Amino acid sequence: MAFQGKKLINDPNDVVTEFIEGLVETYPGLQYLDGFPEVKVVLRADITGSTHDKVAVISGGGSGHEPAHAGFVGEGMLTAAICGDVFASPPVDSILAGIRAVTGPMGCLLIVKNYTGDRLNFGLAAEQAKSEGYKVEMVIVGDDCALPPPRGIAGRRGLAGTVLVHKVAGAAAASGLSLSAVAAEAKRASELIGTMGVALSVCTLPGQVTSDRLGHGKMELGLGIHGEPGAAVADLQPVDVIVSHVLKQILSLETNYVPITRGSRVVLMINGLGGTPVMELMIATGKAVPRLQLEHGLAVERVYTGSFMTSLDMAGFSITVMKANEEILNRLDAPTKAPCWPVGADGNRPPAKIPVPLPPSLSTKSDETLSRPEQLSSQGYLLEVAIEAGATAVINLSDSLNEWDSKVGDGDCGSTMFRGATAIMEDMKKYYPLNDPAETVNEIGSSIRRVMGGTSGILYDIFCKAAYAQLKAKGKSVIMPMHCEMGWSS
Amino acid sequence: MAFQGKKLINDPNDVVTEFIEGLVETYPGLQYLDGFPEVKVVLRADITGSTHDKVAVISGGGSGHEPAHAGFVGEGMLTAAICGDVFASPPVDSILAGIRAVTGPMGCLLIVKNYTGDRLNFGLAAEQAKSEGYKVEMVIVGDDCALPPPRGIAGRRGLAGTVLVHKVAGAAAASGLSLSAVAAEAKRASELIGTMGVALSVCTLPGQVTSDRLGHGKMELGLGIHGEPGAAVADLQPVDVIVSHVLKQILSLETNYVPITRGSRVVLMINGLGGTPVMELMIATGKAVPRLQLEHGLAVERVYTGSFMTSLDMAGFSITVMKANEEILNRLDAPTKAPCWPVGADGNRPPAKIPVPLPPSLSTKSDETLSRPEQLSSQGYLLEVAIEAGATAVINLSDSLNEWDSKVGDGDCGSTMFRGATAIMEDMKKYYPLNDPAETVNEIGSSIRRVMGGTSGILYDIFCKAAYAQLKAKGKSVIMPMHCEMGWSS
Repeated sequence: MAFQGKKLINDPNDVVTEFIEGLVETYPGLQYLDGFPEVKVVLRADITGSTHDKVAVISGGGSGHEPAHAGFVGEGMLTAAICGDVFASPPVDSILAGIRAVTGPMGCLLIVKNYTGDRLNFGLAAEQAKSEGYKVEMVIVGDDCALPPPRGIAGRRGLAGTVLVHKVAGAAAASGLSLSAVAAEAKRASELIGTMGVALSVCTLPGQVTSDRLGHGKMELGLGIHGEPGAAVADLQPVDVIVSHVLKQILSLETNYVPITRGSRVVLMINGLGGTPVMELMIATGKAVPRLQLEHGLAVERVYTGSFMTSLDMAGFSITVMKANEEILNRLDAPTKAPCWPVGADGNRPPAKIPVPLPPSLSTKSDETLSRPEQLSSQGYLLEVAIEAGATAVINLSDSLNEWDSKVGDGDCGSTMFRGATAIMEDMKKYYPLNDPAETVNEIGSSIRRVMGGTSGILYDIFCKAAYAQLKAKGKSVIMPMHCEMGWSS
Repeated sequence: MAFQGKKLINDPNDVVTEFIEGLVETYPGLQYLDGFPEVKVVLRADITGSTHDKVAVISGGGSGHEPAHAGFVGEGMLTAAICGDVFASPPVDSILAGIRAVTGPMGCLLIVKNYTGDRLNFGLAAEQAKSEGYKVEMVIVGDDCALPPPRGIAGRRGLAGTVLVHKVAGAAAASGLSLSAVAAEAKRASELIGTMGVALSVCTLPGQVTSDRLGHGKMELGLGIHGEPGAAVADLQPVDVIVSHVLKQILSLETNYVPITRGSRVVLMINGLGGTPVMELMIATGKAVPRLQLEHGLAVERVYTGSFMTSLDMAGFSITVMKANEEILNRLDAPTKAPCWPVGADGNRPPAKIPVPLPPSLSTKSDETLSRPEQLSSQGYLLEVAIEAGATAVINLSDSLNEWDSKVGDGDCGSTMFRGATAIMEDMKKYYPLNDPAETVNEIGSSIRRVMGGTSGILYDIFCKAAYAQLKAKGKSVIMPMHCEMGWSS
């Protein structure tokens, strides 16, 4: 059954203009041309075309890919972004208005994703601008690796890798190069990039019903950034498996999409498609880097993780691999004021892990206390059976506890208790001094503190500490922490 | 019916450690303590505790809020982030390990969101660290404005506003202030912040089934960042209405959550909850700023739009308003290397709009041609009826066209054609020279070019140009562009 997609919008026809209004409120370095609603052009607030002494770098296309392209406008990256309606190429008049607004005597470079509409509209605008006396060059980006060759006359689609071309071209322009040199760098960069996407959901256009094309438990490989059907629908896999498959497809020597071979230096981009949380993107990154290094024999020089070229609210991500050399790394590392270019990803990579610092003084507990006795006393045996029964009961209850907790809280109470109970079972076998009830209760607290976290973890820990103190005072009487109403003496 | 939530993860139990692995691959300025999986601490790669000559600023809490907190680690913001499991406070041992790793003689400030588990775990860790000789202060942040007073002994929950406290404290520490001065600034900042969230969907914990608590067409106001039930469920409204309601709630003089009155200077944060695209967040920003200015009489000095403190994959956003003065703005604007603090949002705000540049030469068309004739010739009348019939047919077909297009493309063909047909109808009434078929066809092309964009827009425009040329050559014969197989002569 189809329902209207839930979105935080007003009129579905106004989403692009209202996006731009919010964007310029957020970033004072950006402005827009006052031709709303038909002309939707975002440009740097600090330049005017007639006096602009660098090559202007202009991109754009249909909207729905935010922050692309307007979020990449800023010194050192795009000079202007021409925004079409959602998933529709901007009209010639808008592109022309953008060219006129930011192009000075050095000329302008148009970076265009390889779609028919964009090629036609940007192409016609370029011709028109040339007839008005502007110097204009155009570079087409087609980085898609989802569809196998032959790819027909349309060629490869432009995807998230385009953002890397923006950066290279923007940095080249900022360094003062001529139009032909900037265009040549952009073209060369565009030939070094391969991208492929995976979606867990199809995007919903503003004001329209959600599609049920992808069923539960399914993913789509090679989906286009406008929701165009992909190369295949498959059962959802762990992200490590997905990453491995996508990297093999991009780097396939048979299709030869990108000139990357063992020993190459590369840049990696993990790009969220709009509805994917940062946590999941980072997990994909954490799997992609070692695979590139170990399986493909590549040196991963830079990693960009985030949502750069989205498809409205689509859940999923694309992976881009770009062959890099020193020159390209310098362009990618060059400073930019574009607000949505990632920061902190530049420079060399130190070892990720550092050792956990030791506390200033070592534990006063002797190692001897911390081992399971070879021979259990009758009380030690009783204690073991009781702990095991308590922990097993908690483990068996964990699904129900999650369900009850989800009515009033975050629904993880059972999982937290499961972790605690499992750790107690494991640690008990290894080192609980079961013949000493007080020390055993103390160790239970320590197991819980280590793995449970959360409010319940700390509460149980405090309880164990209290029980420990009480037991120490009382001598040999026992209180079970997981069943605090139980109590007996030996 | 409930289904397992679709996520790009591997083992649900490993999401936090795998997130951290991806994070440090992306940002070479970050490292983690090698105590995985139990100790999950992200810290600056450029410092070690024993020699650290500034106050260390440490935060953390349950995971599932990415990029918070680990994405805000970096010079000028957090020194370390202690990550618990998803939605579970980190255990005392992890917090202690983090304190020991980054705290030097100047001491450390713990910034803690107001949840029982975090208060207990961070509080106990602080006591333990003090007993080891560290100087430790703690500031609790409770910025929630969703639940009306009295709020019981638990007080207000800590939400996205906490990120602003991190920034103020981090900048204060970087400037070399003492622990007590940094803590005082953080505490003062925490008292100036109000936040309230709105969700369109409930988040799904890794490995668990999705909740159907919120029905279709519904939203939840005041939902907690762990999916705790909110203050009310209501029908989904346009985002402008939602923004207005939330701002009124935060700024209510009755509840007096924040000391903001007409004339105050404020900072605005629009924070995505994990599954919300940038486009929708920016639309909310574009509506919030003028409402704050015009309805509440506030000066909006800075705007931060993005996903800073999320709730896994929840769709929705929170709004934070913070009272600001020059000192706070300086702290917020101070440079930081924390990768997920927004860039480009600082500084003063120029006018957003600039005029559309004119083409170098004006159109050669005289104004006279561009007006609807007072008296239509019989051919002009026929032309008008035919255009109207064609455009109406397109308008009536637009839903079906969208549906058919969604099978093979992005599903917006009908909407694009609707825009074109509507513009033709409107422009025809205003200025089509209907008695001159060639010029009328030319104007149809111009209407289409202006509003349609996309591939179809440019194709129709090219078609109109061709038809115009043909008509000019043939004299008076007419070709209708929307129905190109139709043709007759007067």
